[in-house]
Amino acid sequence: MEVIILGCYSATPRTFNHPTSQVLNIANHLFLIDCGEGTQVELRRHRVKFSRIKHVFISHLHGDHFFGLIGLISTFSLLGRETDLHIYGPKGIKEIITLQLKLSKAWTSYGLYFHELTSKSPQVIFEDDKVSVETIPLDHRVYTNGFLFKEKEGDRKLLMNEVLNYDIDKAYYRSIKKGKDVILDDGTVIENKLLTGPPPPTKSYAFCSDTAYLPSITEQIKKVTALYHESTFLESHVHLCKSTKHSTAKQAAQIASQAEAKQLILGHYSTRYDNINLFKEEAKACFENVVLAEDGKTISFD
Amino acid sequence: MEVIILGCYSATPRTFNHPTSQVLNIANHLFLIDCGEGTQVELRRHRVKFSRIKHVFISHLHGDHFFGLIGLISTFSLLGRETDLHIYGPKGIKEIITLQLKLSKAWTSYGLYFHELTSKSPQVIFEDDKVSVETIPLDHRVYTNGFLFKEKEGDRKLLMNEVLNYDIDKAYYRSIKKGKDVILDDGTVIENKLLTGPPPPTKSYAFCSDTAYLPSITEQIKKVTALYHESTFLESHVHLCKSTKHSTAKQAAQIASQAEAKQLILGHYSTRYDNINLFKEEAKACFENVVLAEDGKTISFD
Repeated sequence: MEVIILGCYSATPRTFNHPTSQVLNIANHLFLIDCGEGTQVELRRHRVKFSRIKHVFISHLHGDHFFGLIGLISTFSLLGRETDLHIYGPKGIKEIITLQLKLSKAWTSYGLYFHELTSKSPQVIFEDDKVSVETIPLDHRVYTNGFLFKEKEGDRKLLMNEVLNYDIDKAYYRSIKKGKDVILDDGTVIENKLLTGPPPPTKSYAFCSDTAYLPSITEQIKKVTALYHESTFLESHVHLCKSTKHSTAKQAAQIASQAEAKQLILGHYSTRYDNINLFKEEAKACFENVVLAEDGKTISFD
Repeated sequence: MEVIILGCYSATPRTFNHPTSQVLNIANHLFLIDCGEGTQVELRRHRVKFSRIKHVFISHLHGDHFFGLIGLISTFSLLGRETDLHIYGPKGIKEIITLQLKLSKAWTSYGLYFHELTSKSPQVIFEDDKVSVETIPLDHRVYTNGFLFKEKEGDRKLLMNEVLNYDIDKAYYRSIKKGKDVILDDGTVIENKLLTGPPPPTKSYAFCSDTAYLPSITEQIKKVTALYHESTFLESHVHLCKSTKHSTAKQAAQIASQAEAKQLILGHYSTRYDNINLFKEEAKACFENVVLAEDGKTISFD
C-alpha cells in the first residue's frame, strides 16, 4: 500500500503548489482521491498509467478538490479510453460533468458511471474481494465525505511443515488457506488451526479532508494504518477554523491519537505559511508518527 | 500591442504543453483570450496581474479552451477581488460556471457578468473610446467565434511649427487634435489640415481558433496587423481537417495571404508533431511573415 501525493495545498493552485489530489495504491487498485485543477498533468508527471485509474473519489464540491475532474474525463476520451470509470462524489457532480460534456458535444468513449452521495452516515460505496471503501462523513462548509479504504483479510497462511507431515494432497491447499479442515481417506479430521497460521495483517487508509475537528470519526477509523488528515492552519490561527470549518495540525494529531492510528499524514496547508515543518512540529507534540504530505511525495506503508 | 502566449497546444494539457490561452495587451487593456486548464498558474508564472484582467473572451466550449475558467473565477474570489469581470462566450458558459459556484456555495466577491453569444454574424461585443472587439464567426464542430481586436483611430498629430506660426492659443490644441478648424479673432479660418497630420496608424489583432479553412473571414480581417490562426495539422494530415474542422499550416497561411495580414502567428498544434518548425516551413511557402506561437512567448507588434 502506498499513496502518491499529487497535490496537498489548500485553496488555489500556484506555480509549485498543487491543490488536493492523491493516488492510493491498495490491493491492486489505483484509487484517485480528489482531483484539483491540474491533476491530469501531475498524473502524467508521476507516470501514473491513466488506464489503471477506474475509481475516482471526490470528497466535496470545493474547486480545489474537483476542478480537474472534467479535464481528466475529457482527456481519457481524447486518448480513446475504453475502460469504465466510476466517480463517487456529492450529489451535483454528475450534473456538473454531464452539462460540460453535453455543451462540448463530446460524450465519453468509455462507460462513465456516477455514484452520487447524500448520506450523512458512513456507507460502503465500493467493495470487491480484496478491499472495501466507505465514506467518513465530515464537518465542512458544504457536504463532505472522507474515505476509508480497508484491505480485506486474505487467505490463512499454510504451515508447510505440518501440511507435508500429514501428506495432504496439493488439491486441498486452496481450501485449507480458506480455513477449511481436511478429512483424510481414513476419516481422520485434521483441524485447520493445525495446518495454518493467521493471514497477514490488513492495512487501511483514511482520507479526511476538508473538515473541522470532528472527534466522532475516531471510532470508525480506529487503528487505521495511515490517517491523512487536513491541517489547513496552525494553532496560532485556530480562530479561523470555526468559520472556515478547517482543522489545525494539533487537532489532526488529536484525531490520530484518539483513533490510535499508526501514522498521521498532514496536508491541505494554507499557503500563508512558508515553512510547513511547523505543522509537523505542532502535531508531534501530541502524536509521534507524523509525516508531511508534499507535492510529488510517495508514502509507502510496508 | 503585444500578446503573451500562455498555451498554444491542442487537445490535452501535458507536462510542458499548455492548452489555449493568451493575454492581449492592447490600448491599456489586458484581454484574456480562451482559458484552458491551468491558465491561472500560467498567469502567475508570467506575472500577469490578475486585477488587470477585466474581460475574458472564450471562443468555444471545448475543454482545451475553457476548462480553466471556473478555477480562475474562483481564485479571483479567494483573493478578495472587487473589480468586475466580464465573460464573453457561447451560450451555456453562464450555466456551467454558475452551477459550479452554486454547488460550492461560493458566489464571487466581485461582479461577474456573462455576455453569451449566439449570433452567426460578426458583432461588436465590447467597445470603449480606444478599442473595439468584434466576433469572427468560425466553422468548427461546436459554435465558435474568433475575435477581432481593433484600436480606434487616435487624435490627429499637431504640426507644432504651423501651430506656433499662427500663434494659436494652447486652449485650442485639444480641439485641433480632434480635427476641428480654428477661427482667429479677425475671423480668419485656418483649416485643420494645415495644422495637423494623420493620427498614428492603428493596430489590430485577429484570433481565429478553432476553425476549418474559412476564406469568408478574410474580408472582415483585411489588413489586420497580426492574425493568430490555428494550424492543428500539417498538409500531410489534411484529410483529418474535414471531420475535426481544423486547419493546416498551409491553410492558415492562405487566410493570412488573402487577408493581407502583416503577420501570421501559428498555434494550436496537435501534439502528434515533435517539431513545430515544420508548421512554419509549410506556412512560409505561401506567406512570408510567420511566427510560431510557443508557450510562454511574448510577441510584440511595434
